[in-house]
Amino acid sequence: MAILVVGSVAFDSIETPHGKVQKCLGGAATHFALAASFFTDVRVIGVVGEDFLPEHEAVFTKRGIDTTGIERATGLSFHWTGEYSGSLNEARTLGTDLNVFATFSPKIPAAYEASEYLFLANIDPVLQARVRAAMPDVKLVCGDTMNYWIADHRAALEVVLRELDVLLINDGEARMLSGESNIVLAAEKVMALGPKALVIKHGEYGATVFFSDKLFPGSAKPRPFRAPALPLAEVVDPTGAGDSFSGGFYGYIASQPNLTPAVVRRALFYGGVMGSFAVERFGTERLQHTTREEIEERLQLFIDLSHLEHVAYADPEV
Amino acid sequence: MAILVVGSVAFDSIETPHGKVQKCLGGAATHFALAASFFTDVRVIGVVGEDFLPEHEAVFTKRGIDTTGIERATGLSFHWTGEYSGSLNEARTLGTDLNVFATFSPKIPAAYEASEYLFLANIDPVLQARVRAAMPDVKLVCGDTMNYWIADHRAALEVVLRELDVLLINDGEARMLSGESNIVLAAEKVMALGPKALVIKHGEYGATVFFSDKLFPGSAKPRPFRAPALPLAEVVDPTGAGDSFSGGFYGYIASQPNLTPAVVRRALFYGGVMGSFAVERFGTERLQHTTREEIEERLQLFIDLSHLEHVAYADPEV
Repeated sequence: MAILVVGSVAFDSIETPHGKVQKCLGGAATHFALAASFFTDVRVIGVVGEDFLPEHEAVFTKRGIDTTGIERATGLSFHWTGEYSGSLNEARTLGTDLNVFATFSPKIPAAYEASEYLFLANIDPVLQARVRAAMPDVKLVCGDTMNYWIADHRAALEVVLRELDVLLINDGEARMLSGESNIVLAAEKVMALGPKALVIKHGEYGATVFFSDKLFPGSAKPRPFRAPALPLAEVVDPTGAGDSFSGGFYGYIASQPNLTPAVVRRALFYGGVMGSFAVERFGTERLQHTTREEIEERLQLFIDLSHLEHVAYADPEV
Repeated sequence: MAILVVGSVAFDSIETPHGKVQKCLGGAATHFALAASFFTDVRVIGVVGEDFLPEHEAVFTKRGIDTTGIERATGLSFHWTGEYSGSLNEARTLGTDLNVFATFSPKIPAAYEASEYLFLANIDPVLQARVRAAMPDVKLVCGDTMNYWIADHRAALEVVLRELDVLLINDGEARMLSGESNIVLAAEKVMALGPKALVIKHGEYGATVFFSDKLFPGSAKPRPFRAPALPLAEVVDPTGAGDSFSGGFYGYIASQPNLTPAVVRRALFYGGVMGSFAVERFGTERLQHTTREEIEERLQLFIDLSHLEHVAYADPEV
C-alpha cells in the first residue's frame, strides 16, 4: 500500500575523506522515498526551486515514485553543505540555505489523499502536525525529528509526538528528548509522549525497537528487538543513511498486509539493509542503482551476521 | 576442559549513581573466573595481600574455582577506586594502589600445567608473555589488554599479540591499537599483529567477532558475527562487565569438544549474557548468585532480542 512522505527534497554539497560532491540530489524525503520504493508505492510532498531539473525528477520517476506533490517554486532548492571526518559518525554543517524551503507549506494533492501510510520526515513540527491533521484516516503514521526541533521547538514537537505510531530517532536525540541517559528509560519516557513504538538508531551498531502496550492493543507488549548494522570497511558518505533506514523500515511495513511484531522486526532489518547501501556512495547514487535481489542478498548477510544458526531468507510473508 | 586465568584479584571501591561500596572483591581474574565457572573448570593465578580473607576465597571455592595459584604476599591486595556517572559507559579512576600486585611474578603450580585453555587477563604484557611461554602446549590462548599498555608498552604487548588466538578488547582500544577509526579496518590491522580472531566489545551495543584465515585453517574464513547486549533499565555497576563477558565467552568455548565458527558465535552470546548479569549488582555480587538455569533463560532473551523468528534454545552441542 502507498506511503505518503513529506519532507525535504534538496541539494547537498558534501566532503568526506573519500571525496567531495557539489549539489548532489539529497534531502530526507528523497532518501526515504528511494529506499521505500523497493517495497511499495511512494508519493512525495516537498518543494524545490528552479535548479531542480528533469534529470533530478527522473531519479524519482525511474523508481516509480509519484512526484505530483513536489511543488515548484521560484528561486533555488534547499541546499545543505557539510563535511565528515574521522569515524564519519557526525556531520559538521558548513551551510544551510533554506531557499524555497523557508516558506514551504505542504499541500496534499487529491490523488494522495487515500494514502494508507504517512511518513513525517524531519521538518518543522508545525508542518508535520498540519500534514498529520489533514490525513486523519491513515492506517499508520511514522516520523522523524532532530536535535534542533527537540531543543528549540519542543511544544510544537509534542503535538506531533502525540499523534505518532512510530518515531525513529538516534541515541543522542532519544537522550535529549527524554532527559535520560539510560536508553531503556529514555525509550519509556519518549513513548509516554505519544509514540506507540520507538526505533532508536545506533549508527554503526544497528537499531533497537521498543514497544509500548498501545501498538498491539489486546496483545502482550512485545519485548525490545535489535537489528545489527553491517560492519563496513568503507563508508563513503553517511548522508541520508538515517532516512534510507526509515525508508527500508517503513517501506517493508507498508508492503505487508498486517502490522505484527514479526513484521516490525523484519522491517528493522530492512532498515539496516537500506542504510548500509546508502553510505556506499555519495548522495543517492547507490540507492538509485540497487535492486530488490541485491536487497534480499544483503538481508541474508544481516541474518548471517546476527543469527546463531544459518536461517535461509524466507518469503517476507511472515 | 580447564581454563587457566592469570590476572588481578583485587578490591574495588566504587561509586555509581546507584550507590557506593568499599573494598568489594574484584579484579579481572576474579570476574573472569566467576563467569567462566558456570561452563567449565577454572584455575586462577594471581596475588593477594593479608586483607584477602577466607570469606573472599570462599567466593571462588563455592563456585569450584581452583585457588591453588593465588599467591599470598605480605601487605595489602591491589585496590582500585573509581566512579561512574551519566550513562555509566566510562569509569573515572580515582586511585590505583598496586600494593602486592606491584611485584607480582606469576608462578604456575604443577597442578595447573596441563590446562588446555589459557586466558591472559589485563596485566603487564611482560607477565602475559611469560605465562604464555611457560604454557607452550595449551590448546587455545585468549587475552585482554587496555589503553595503558597499548599506549606505553607497545613493544611488550606486540610480543603477546603474536602468540594469541583470540584478543578481546573494546572499540576504543581497537582504534588505538590499530590507528584506524573504521572498525573493520581496525580489526584487520589488529589481526595482522597476531590474533587469529578479534572480539571487539561495544559496551551497551554488544560485541562483534572478526576472523582472520588462521583460526580455522583450510576452511573459508568465517564472516564477522555480532551479538547484542541486553537493553537494561538499570546498570548498577559496570565494573567487571568486560571480564565477565570474556569469562562467559571463553568458558563456553572451553566447555565444547571442538572450536568451530558456530561455537564462537554462541560463545559471543554467552559473553553478553554474563556481562549483563555482572552489571546488575555491585562487584561480583550478581555472578556469585546466578545459576546455569538462569544463564540459559537469559541466553533465550538474547536470542529473542536478535533473531527474526523465535528459536528455542537448543542444547549447546551445535
